[in-house]
Amino acid sequence: MKRTVHDIGEFGLIRQFQKQIPLAGDDCAVLPGGGLLTCDPVIEGIHFLTDTPARQVGWKAMARNLSDIAAMGGEPRYAVVSLGLRPTTPVRWVRQLYDGLHAAARRFGCEIVGGDTAHVRHEQFVVVTLLGHADQPVRRSGARPGDIVFVTGRLGGAVRSGKHLRFTPRLREARWLVKRVHVHAMIDVSDGLASDLQRLVEASRVGFDIASAKIPGKLPGALSDGEDFELLFTVAPCNAGKARRKFHEIGRVIKKPVVLLDGVPLAMKGYDHFA
Amino acid sequence: MKRTVHDIGEFGLIRQFQKQIPLAGDDCAVLPGGGLLTCDPVIEGIHFLTDTPARQVGWKAMARNLSDIAAMGGEPRYAVVSLGLRPTTPVRWVRQLYDGLHAAARRFGCEIVGGDTAHVRHEQFVVVTLLGHADQPVRRSGARPGDIVFVTGRLGGAVRSGKHLRFTPRLREARWLVKRVHVHAMIDVSDGLASDLQRLVEASRVGFDIASAKIPGKLPGALSDGEDFELLFTVAPCNAGKARRKFHEIGRVIKKPVVLLDGVPLAMKGYDHFA
Repeated sequence: MKRTVHDIGEFGLIRQFQKQIPLAGDDCAVLPGGGLLTCDPVIEGIHFLTDTPARQVGWKAMARNLSDIAAMGGEPRYAVVSLGLRPTTPVRWVRQLYDGLHAAARRFGCEIVGGDTAHVRHEQFVVVTLLGHADQPVRRSGARPGDIVFVTGRLGGAVRSGKHLRFTPRLREARWLVKRVHVHAMIDVSDGLASDLQRLVEASRVGFDIASAKIPGKLPGALSDGEDFELLFTVAPCNAGKARRKFHEIGRVIKKPVVLLDGVPLAMKGYDHFA
Repeated sequence: MKRTVHDIGEFGLIRQFQKQIPLAGDDCAVLPGGGLLTCDPVIEGIHFLTDTPARQVGWKAMARNLSDIAAMGGEPRYAVVSLGLRPTTPVRWVRQLYDGLHAAARRFGCEIVGGDTAHVRHEQFVVVTLLGHADQPVRRSGARPGDIVFVTGRLGGAVRSGKHLRFTPRLREARWLVKRVHVHAMIDVSDGLASDLQRLVEASRVGFDIASAKIPGKLPGALSDGEDFELLFTVAPCNAGKARRKFHEIGRVIKKPVVLLDGVPLAMKGYDHFA
């Protein structure tokens, strides 16, 4: 039987094709010299609805990519935008979409420098690609047993509350962390805490012992809902004090490569785009 | 009445939003320091069919972007790939798509460094973003009255013949031109010669007098068909000798900002994605 994208899921797809992509495996590709390159599709019917205000669609499409730059401890610089538009779409909609894209870019010191547009019959899409920079990019692979685990804000319910359309990418927090705290590993929580912890397990070959009572948000949504766009990071115990004043400590890094919730292995339950 | 994307067309959209995008207006955005950034969507039902071999879809998606780098006289370096996939798509299809993407990238010294994938219900898409470099990027805006106009190869019929799926981006030709001939203006012919001449008219504020008998290809297709991906460029008369040995001279640059075919103004007839 032929296996489909649905059968192997997003994790399976990534595993299968990452072998061919040596610089992949983080929120951004890290280029020689510290360049960061990332792209992220936002699709009608999946990431926004046909009646979502276009300005919010634009904000979200840019902010998701800004969040990927934040997760590497970097600074965004330039963006290009690919649009798939239906011919019946009002020009006003496109203008408001660009307003949202520009608003998010400007707020974080990034400039939209170009793009291209093509015609779709069904689902419209926005693909933003961001070029950024980090002198010392923070990887997913740097977590060490004994590290303290933090998140920058509340998790869960982002789709229901509408936060997913107007969230603030954690660039300022990331900048502070990189300057003031030595962060070992970082990722943005885009597919749910459980999924993104699992990504750190695979990248760092360590495990996590998370205390459910410390997770800022209501379970099970705080573990499994997508689109939070908070940062999940680990720091050595000696540096945890500074992070504790600003962020939520949720657990610690262990040797065994597994995610434990209150000591019990957690079945992976994050959002899978193809499930 | 509300104006739609169809009403104002691709040219209108670009004119309307280019004002907000200061570095746009060429095949790639030119970054400080000579970086080139470009992205280009390839959409099922528009740029390829559901039964197009996936390897060819991948080749085309990469080659279109490589062609944009060629048009600036640049070298490609890094690529990221955004995919919109239906859950029912066979994994084999995705593997073959990547084979085509990697084949085109490798052949021209470019490396795929990352990407992201999401779920669509209807049309699948591939958006490649390329980062390249040019010490002295060739713009659309440099054509001067008296320049001789060239194209690198045959025009027209690329969709019918299947050339649009397996064309060779003119990176080698562009490199030779930049080294050996001083090129004033360049663009890749992606939407038909008539349309792309019009783009040079707008960017350079000059006109073109084209001789129909010299166009390499059958009219009217050679003027109006899209997806040729040959380069269209202008050089000063004193440098035209070298270019003449390799490429097709098709006319000359005039002062009046209009495209003439055998002395008669040409109605713009290129491919418009939203017409």
